Amino acid sequence: MKITLLGTGDVRQVPVYGCDCEACYRARIDVSYVRRPCSALLESAGGRLLLDGGLSDLCQRFKPGDLDAILLTHYHVDHVQGLFHLRWGLGPTIPVFGPEDQNGCADLLKHPGMLAFQPPLNAFESIYFGDLQLTPLPLQHSKPTFGYLLREGDHSIAYLTDTVGLPPETEAYLKQHTPDLLVVDCSHPPTEIPPRNHNDLNMALAIHHSLQPGKTVLTHISHELDAMFAQKLIELPAGVYLAEDQMGWSLDCGGLRRDWRMGALIG
Amino acid sequence: MKITLLGTGDVRQVPVYGCDCEACYRARIDVSYVRRPCSALLESAGGRLLLDGGLSDLCQRFKPGDLDAILLTHYHVDHVQGLFHLRWGLGPTIPVFGPEDQNGCADLLKHPGMLAFQPPLNAFESIYFGDLQLTPLPLQHSKPTFGYLLREGDHSIAYLTDTVGLPPETEAYLKQHTPDLLVVDCSHPPTEIPPRNHNDLNMALAIHHSLQPGKTVLTHISHELDAMFAQKLIELPAGVYLAEDQMGWSLDCGGLRRDWRMGALIG
Repeated sequence: MKITLLGTGDVRQVPVYGCDCEACYRARIDVSYVRRPCSALLESAGGRLLLDGGLSDLCQRFKPGDLDAILLTHYHVDHVQGLFHLRWGLGPTIPVFGPEDQNGCADLLKHPGMLAFQPPLNAFESIYFGDLQLTPLPLQHSKPTFGYLLREGDHSIAYLTDTVGLPPETEAYLKQHTPDLLVVDCSHPPTEIPPRNHNDLNMALAIHHSLQPGKTVLTHISHELDAMFAQKLIELPAGVYLAEDQMGWSLDCGGLRRDWRMGALIG
Repeated sequence: MKITLLGTGDVRQVPVYGCDCEACYRARIDVSYVRRPCSALLESAGGRLLLDGGLSDLCQRFKPGDLDAILLTHYHVDHVQGLFHLRWGLGPTIPVFGPEDQNGCADLLKHPGMLAFQPPLNAFESIYFGDLQLTPLPLQHSKPTFGYLLREGDHSIAYLTDTVGLPPETEAYLKQHTPDLLVVDCSHPPTEIPPRNHNDLNMALAIHHSLQPGKTVLTHISHELDAMFAQKLIELPAGVYLAEDQMGWSLDCGGLRRDWRMGALIG
């Protein structure tokens, strides 16, 4: 089982249009620092699953048939906008799974094209792709949102965006099913004002300390938080990593390891 | 006054994802045949106006301050999707004009960011950017849609997408104000079944013959129609041109002339 973080930015991405902060300036002169819309690719024996469809170049990244399914966390534009073009393609239909949200986004559900939207998933009711077990976990966000626990054999990855904190039942479930790798929303710098809709660094680290996963990767990064890292103002605890676009992690009999980053060459 | 057609494709664009027809295959191996979401840039002494915001790379094409305004024909996704990211930028706000459509598209009107959505325009009531006069013209489409007559001095350009035929009052208005250049929706190959929402070639040519503009450019081209042109199955009447991405037309004291195409090097 392998996960590649295709996008690790918040809704504004990095660089923010017109911003010259340290993070945005750096990303503008070196594409390897760009943070695209938050999304990931999961590859396992059970198939290739795209986690969220916010990348606008999905049609260039994936050939028809490359993806066995698309898994949506929720229907905010930055998590689905790449589907607006993809849907009008030819080739095998792509099943799309996600939470109940009758509005969807724009006319996506009304005109699905080659996307086969499946009945909404139910919290904690697993679905399977071969041996890959996928369990929707309710999150706390401004739209109905699921994180996902992805399990194959003895290995598991929890992918939790977008969220502010965790609902008690999701936290309890993950304490019983400790993931090897936790990928978690960490949009904001540490703040004293309780953040809305997304974790700040304090809340993301609190989730890490509560769940005690093998390793934790912070994603959905804002340019403000990214700038603090660029200035080395933040040091992360052992076992906690800052996500980068194209960062990959593999889980197999050798355990969890970080893949050599292939470079942010796409897009 | 100068217009550059930044995108000339229909909602599916060219190439269509997964399609290997003559037009799509050609566009995949030669980027100069790509047809992006339908949009244009108007440059005049009155300012630089973007006609529709469906290009997903607007943030790369335009620096903050480059655009004096954005003019929307309507709120279908392929005409506004580039604004989803642009709106979260920094810099001078960009006024956005368009027809009345309270739903807008997704959460664009609810969270406009740096976009300053103006009160809806009224049919046939002109607004001005310096000496540039801009008149909204009702079109026939599945959403409230305006075409625009753009006038500066003695010169005028009519930009009419998306539409199937023309409402009688719009046709009458344009017969009284014959444009030097007509840019018109021509999505479909000639068909015997009356098309819905978009012109086929017969309807686009009927509009050309009815209005008798200086020249006519066919845009919002589907891959089916594009494939017929690729196979040289269609010959256009004198004065009628098939649009290409990056095609430019200038209007000045020397009259109307086609600019040297700068190449479809962007995006």
